[in-house]
Amino acid sequence: MKLFGYWRSSASYRVRIALNLKGIDVEHIPVNLRAGEQREDNYAKINPQLLVPTLEREDGIRLTQSAAIIEYLEETVAGPALLPNDPLQRARIRSVMTLIGADTAPIQNLRVLKYLKGPLDLPQETVDDWARHWIATGLTSLEKMTASSSSSYLYTETPTAADCFLIPQIYNARRYDIDMSAFPRLSEVEATCLALPAFEAARPETQADAPDE
Amino acid sequence: MKLFGYWRSSASYRVRIALNLKGIDVEHIPVNLRAGEQREDNYAKINPQLLVPTLEREDGIRLTQSAAIIEYLEETVAGPALLPNDPLQRARIRSVMTLIGADTAPIQNLRVLKYLKGPLDLPQETVDDWARHWIATGLTSLEKMTASSSSSYLYTETPTAADCFLIPQIYNARRYDIDMSAFPRLSEVEATCLALPAFEAARPETQADAPDE
Repeated sequence: MKLFGYWRSSASYRVRIALNLKGIDVEHIPVNLRAGEQREDNYAKINPQLLVPTLEREDGIRLTQSAAIIEYLEETVAGPALLPNDPLQRARIRSVMTLIGADTAPIQNLRVLKYLKGPLDLPQETVDDWARHWIATGLTSLEKMTASSSSSYLYTETPTAADCFLIPQIYNARRYDIDMSAFPRLSEVEATCLALPAFEAARPETQADAPDE
Repeated sequence: MKLFGYWRSSASYRVRIALNLKGIDVEHIPVNLRAGEQREDNYAKINPQLLVPTLEREDGIRLTQSAAIIEYLEETVAGPALLPNDPLQRARIRSVMTLIGADTAPIQNLRVLKYLKGPLDLPQETVDDWARHWIATGLTSLEKMTASSSSSYLYTETPTAADCFLIPQIYNARRYDIDMSAFPRLSEVEATCLALPAFEAARPETQADAPDE
């Protein structure tokens, strides 16, 4: 299979973690979001939403949206479970996926920040504050929701889709110099995750399309 | 069960449709987002994310996030399926859920518009243009993705979770005077949905907490 993605896209990062946890090798096709490659005809045909990631199966059929891709992998590929069996636990995991994947990341992703800077002509500082505000809002809720839990990962003893979503969001928080000491529970889970090769190998900096420096 | 929601919240609207399609009666508890009731202690204890909807089971256990709630209902309640059986079809449905539930609605929901108007001090016209821009972006992608499909509902012959997400987003589009004639495929599916009692009974205007007028 092929994964069209971008090293720094948190949605791509989530799927890389999930693929690694499942032990699935894919060919990584970089789409340079900074350079606007997602808007070029080539990619627009692959993903009409002009977003990454896109997973292309061996038969050429394509799947979009990180949450949908991860659920698909869970339903079709053997290997470690990314969702628990119990429906209530599954709902908790999916609630975290949405808290991050809907209520946090999309409000501070590249296309939104570009709109604030371009059409709305807001200064860089205001744009950075915007990103910080929504990231901190999301992480504050998540810390509250999970503070009383003492499992190794967010809600479980093995990593789930919720952890696949958490780590890229914390990576974004650090990019915006958010003080992670305000989120002890999330930081603890982060350390546990990053010690796993599946998370380590998915890190943005280790991707082929990451700049050298 | 109890559903904490708000008549005009599109996330609440999605869950109302799903509950109706499954034939589940719940007690509706209104949380007035305009009046800021979601930030009051009472509700903050129910949903630390200060968002609606929250579904409370008879045993008092609570579930948050419309997508997670709908998946939970699908996994635990008999009745018409809100997701097809085929994993690839399920991925398509979930991709639509995310296109709307993550990449469209949360960028133009009340708390984001309030931030643009309050802290960023932008004029109402700019705030309205913002909402229109992101709604139109989402619907344009979705129209492209589904234009070649001729099924009664978005991708199927019976309504799915994708349709539960579509209809509230179109409702929001109309609030912002977006010309729906640009989206013939989506408009066709909308008409088919709104002819069903499950969708009709979930409409914002028919909710107990909707203003009279």
